[in-house]
Amino acid sequence: MTVFLVGAGPGDPGLITARGLELIRSCDVLVHDRLVCGELVDEAPADAIRIGRERLEQDEINRLLVRYGRRGLTVVRLKGGDPFVFGRGGEEALALTEADVPFEVVPGVSSLSAAPAAAGIPVTHRGVSSQVTIANAQGHLDFGALARATGTLVLFMGLGRLPEIADGLVGHGLDPHTPAAVISAGTTPDEEVAVATLGTIAEAAAELRSPGLIVVGEVVSLSERLAADRGTLAFA
Amino acid sequence: MTVFLVGAGPGDPGLITARGLELIRSCDVLVHDRLVCGELVDEAPADAIRIGRERLEQDEINRLLVRYGRRGLTVVRLKGGDPFVFGRGGEEALALTEADVPFEVVPGVSSLSAAPAAAGIPVTHRGVSSQVTIANAQGHLDFGALARATGTLVLFMGLGRLPEIADGLVGHGLDPHTPAAVISAGTTPDEEVAVATLGTIAEAAAELRSPGLIVVGEVVSLSERLAADRGTLAFA
Repeated sequence: MTVFLVGAGPGDPGLITARGLELIRSCDVLVHDRLVCGELVDEAPADAIRIGRERLEQDEINRLLVRYGRRGLTVVRLKGGDPFVFGRGGEEALALTEADVPFEVVPGVSSLSAAPAAAGIPVTHRGVSSQVTIANAQGHLDFGALARATGTLVLFMGLGRLPEIADGLVGHGLDPHTPAAVISAGTTPDEEVAVATLGTIAEAAAELRSPGLIVVGEVVSLSERLAADRGTLAFA
Repeated sequence: MTVFLVGAGPGDPGLITARGLELIRSCDVLVHDRLVCGELVDEAPADAIRIGRERLEQDEINRLLVRYGRRGLTVVRLKGGDPFVFGRGGEEALALTEADVPFEVVPGVSSLSAAPAAAGIPVTHRGVSSQVTIANAQGHLDFGALARATGTLVLFMGLGRLPEIADGLVGHGLDPHTPAAVISAGTTPDEEVAVATLGTIAEAAAELRSPGLIVVGEVVSLSERLAADRGTLAFA
């Protein structure tokens, strides 16, 4: 009847929404991203059609959602994190709108706060940061504007160019002693965390694997107290 | 045994996480915010202690969590949205750490993307916005920095000073024709949406009630296509 664009959350299968889980359990078709955990894919009915995203381009996904939606099937499009925070959910929603296929967006927990939380970092904290700037590091980054932004900086998909990012921010005026962290595979059993400063984070996180979230700002220093028992790597 | 700082999500009870719901259903003590919906409070066991947040100051909450945590009870501290996105969860986590009471953060869906999504607005969209700045409008706002930030601007708790905010952003160089929206009580049955421009949003949203989320940026214009059937108010 409808295509549901569902956020799977940051990685831990317990962090999907109650409604999202209910929809997976009753869908006819499940189209899922590569990064969505297997436990959630396994929640679909045994006779549901399952389609893994990795083999398909975005245009093909859009066509697939329209095609199954038009057949009157209940389609769950399961995406990592939140469909509308760097999830390309807007493109799928537009494709469905243009094809007159009804859809509904079911938001999810974004990594933007959940991955830092797992490392003991609140992205906002009274008296420390009341502003957060979130950017996708796969595209163009305006280091000048990011360095001037007050509060916390959260960068998605930037681990592969971390040295350039750290240098760019310092080169545009951010103090190299600003606390910085990388959370790799946050909230999953593979989670790894590096806590350092902007000047040392590239070295501290050199062994971490994508996907990784970069967090820069004074809130990172709270992790020392809030994640003391988590085996966090700490490089001053 | 532990205090769980749980995000209740943006308002719709179906948008709590599966793990958060499971914890509510098995808790001994539930300490909840005023804005958390009754359906979730009702999920606690019949014999659980329920404490509504509205009568208490933050210090009292912290002491309460420590006291019940020390008794070895399973305590759920249920907060609107996400505990670490303007949720003051960090303060509670620090109080628990200092008292040596074990705690765990269970992230929630933040209004930051869920409320705009309900109004047909993706906060990021390929080719339109790959950056989001979120700020708490209850504190000091640096209008100059916010006006220079690229991408989407999301302001929490600013509905009461919307005329000042709109004027401040225009006064610091943002085009008054920039699309802007207010989502009041997003994802709940009381949801109301105003879509306008920065120059007209204060008038368009004059009747809307708190809590309201303010969204400014080109992504707002997508709501016309993505929320056509939702009775969205539209003022050009």
